[in-house]
Amino acid sequence: MEGAIQNLHIPLISAIIMSILIKNTLLGGKESHIYIEENRISEIGRITEADEVIDGANTIAMPGLVNTHTHAAMTLLRGYGDDMPLHEWLQNRIWPAEAKLDGEMVYWGTRLAIIEMIKSGTTAFNDMYFFMEDVARAVQDSGVRALLGYGFIDLFDEEKRENEIKETEKFVRFVETMNNPRIKAAVAPHAIYTVSREGLEWSAEFAREKGLRLHTHVSETEKEVKDSFEQHGMSPVKYLDSMGFLGSDVIAAHSVWLDDRDIEIYAKRGVWPSHNPASNMKLAVGRAMPYSRMRKHGIKPVLGTDGAASNNNLDMLEEMKTAALLQKLSGDPTALPAHEALKMATEWGTQALGFNAGKIEEGYLADIILIRSDIPEMTPMHNWESSAVYAANGSAVDTVICDGRTLMRNRRIDGEEEAIRRAREMAERFYG
Amino acid sequence: MEGAIQNLHIPLISAIIMSILIKNTLLGGKESHIYIEENRISEIGRITEADEVIDGANTIAMPGLVNTHTHAAMTLLRGYGDDMPLHEWLQNRIWPAEAKLDGEMVYWGTRLAIIEMIKSGTTAFNDMYFFMEDVARAVQDSGVRALLGYGFIDLFDEEKRENEIKETEKFVRFVETMNNPRIKAAVAPHAIYTVSREGLEWSAEFAREKGLRLHTHVSETEKEVKDSFEQHGMSPVKYLDSMGFLGSDVIAAHSVWLDDRDIEIYAKRGVWPSHNPASNMKLAVGRAMPYSRMRKHGIKPVLGTDGAASNNNLDMLEEMKTAALLQKLSGDPTALPAHEALKMATEWGTQALGFNAGKIEEGYLADIILIRSDIPEMTPMHNWESSAVYAANGSAVDTVICDGRTLMRNRRIDGEEEAIRRAREMAERFYG
Repeated sequence: MEGAIQNLHIPLISAIIMSILIKNTLLGGKESHIYIEENRISEIGRITEADEVIDGANTIAMPGLVNTHTHAAMTLLRGYGDDMPLHEWLQNRIWPAEAKLDGEMVYWGTRLAIIEMIKSGTTAFNDMYFFMEDVARAVQDSGVRALLGYGFIDLFDEEKRENEIKETEKFVRFVETMNNPRIKAAVAPHAIYTVSREGLEWSAEFAREKGLRLHTHVSETEKEVKDSFEQHGMSPVKYLDSMGFLGSDVIAAHSVWLDDRDIEIYAKRGVWPSHNPASNMKLAVGRAMPYSRMRKHGIKPVLGTDGAASNNNLDMLEEMKTAALLQKLSGDPTALPAHEALKMATEWGTQALGFNAGKIEEGYLADIILIRSDIPEMTPMHNWESSAVYAANGSAVDTVICDGRTLMRNRRIDGEEEAIRRAREMAERFYG
Repeated sequence: MEGAIQNLHIPLISAIIMSILIKNTLLGGKESHIYIEENRISEIGRITEADEVIDGANTIAMPGLVNTHTHAAMTLLRGYGDDMPLHEWLQNRIWPAEAKLDGEMVYWGTRLAIIEMIKSGTTAFNDMYFFMEDVARAVQDSGVRALLGYGFIDLFDEEKRENEIKETEKFVRFVETMNNPRIKAAVAPHAIYTVSREGLEWSAEFAREKGLRLHTHVSETEKEVKDSFEQHGMSPVKYLDSMGFLGSDVIAAHSVWLDDRDIEIYAKRGVWPSHNPASNMKLAVGRAMPYSRMRKHGIKPVLGTDGAASNNNLDMLEEMKTAALLQKLSGDPTALPAHEALKMATEWGTQALGFNAGKIEEGYLADIILIRSDIPEMTPMHNWESSAVYAANGSAVDTVICDGRTLMRNRRIDGEEEAIRRAREMAERFYG
């Protein structure tokens, strides 16, 4: 990782800023000053001076968005295959391309993804992929926050399992050595149809021993559920629960094909279902995640874009709208209202990842975005939550602060041109 | 209409440009020069000089997008009510607000809508609303193309019908007097549940006598279809067809709840169904327009955003993605592929509206947009059609040319700040 080793990729504001003041931004509908000291929100309201002062006029302030399920480096595969049956897409396009990946490709694919995420207001993400040390370096060099898990896939083979266990342990040690409070390791067995029971059990045990989050895919397709009933005599959720896998430390991507008993198990265990509506629609999973039924059981669903190959962007503002629209389609216009879409994408998302951010209140981590309110699609602004969810897209984001550092001002991010150039070069390798 | 009368709103390039050359843009995947003379595309490829030369490096060229169903001035009601049951939304929010509308509000609401549309790549739209002379002035002052229909609603009352007939005739004469080739009048009876049979029959007859398009709402909700069976013993489509209303001059918004016989009638008559996926989802109509069945019958569906109160933006790039995703959700990932979403939004859309645009070929009207390809979400670009539909949103649009005039360069449009300011003022009147 030439680029990473040389540490060329220093965010816009490279000097250590001790305090930041955002003046006159709209916070929860009220004009406010937000004062940040070090990496935390220190005060709302009175302070009028700081090392760095940001004019927040004509903006609304929101917690940074949290993408709770993605495969960041798959930006390199954006548009590499679309409009195809899932099996054909995986077998003929995605898997052969992924076989060509190397650490350098993953580093630059992830760098590009993070720039795209910052530009659309995301300050934290949950990633599962390969070459995860390179992903961690990309996060380190970009200034955002991330929960990172090595995609554990043993295909029910003992030798492979031993290898995946070693890879997982090695990556967790790597993250410990980084000692960067913005970066946390997760244990990420891919899914019940790619990981043996032994692999899943080891993952859960190892995660709890280390105090780490678990990240997996659950009940994305009807086929997965049918196969589980055939092989295990129970649903994927029940199967995972039967081995003690599920808990409030588990992020369960997709969670589309759940029945009422599955939902009860999620509620009881405190599982975080990560809703990925654009990916679910694009890959034609056949129905929407049962959001309203989950809410009735007190579950707090969170939101994610999935990888750019099945979306095909990482825009969480767009994803909030897609989620809200998809939940309403079936007949209830009050389902998933705007203020809940915002909670999914901020407060609940950050709880799922285990960071103390997601709210603009004293004491929380300073992960804050400013959205322009003086652009056509935000005019007029009868209701800021509705405008943010239904009218805006990622291009409305003007300023991004993560961990008390300004990563973007006026939509400018240092290193953007280089990341685009390098990602283009990396993508050429699929054709080599 | 003070602003309009004073003609203050002159687009960016106010001098009459005789020729424009777009150099080195990507057209259909090939680097090309596009040469425009007066308001038409004159040549692709050889010419190297012109009065205005646009550097098209790092852009892809596409025909301007066509929004085939909207109520532009409803930008003023963006976010005024959301996440509510349809009836409550209309009765308690939309209708009381619309009762306060005047011509000045509609003028500025439409100006704002047109700026939003230009900024997201739309060069032509199909509008149905009130105070349509003010809408026409807004189109005239903005440089885009539009098909405009006065929303004819008689509520089955003879006196009201006579008034609506007069309003329609008056507006058609007004557009004739404008004598602006960018602006065409349509006849726009609102729907079968708001317009009497006599009103619908008069509309069809008048439209054909004058050679005008018809624009109406058809089978948006299940209730509309059930009511039609109760009242007329047949579906809304069959009912309209029974009075000779349907033809290749009809744009039928929504067209969600169609059965196989309805689809056969559409195919036989050459009706243009306008798909409005975001609005349908947000208002919870219960299912998706039967796009694939329509295509099997040779129907060419077109695309629209509906009004900003039920979307809540006018971004046709976003709408293409929503349409493609919605059609796939139910189980077929090959449904509505990217290249067809582009056809819906360009070639077919312009045919529906009756303008000779929608293709970048010699002889077509010069309605062209340039989309940036050097931004994160367009990187890498394995497939330009996929990138445009699935990865881009309206903010990727850099340059907009309509009728041979440059309306936007580098995302700058003359008069944007004023339109935003005035629209904000107008929206205050809802609270007065």
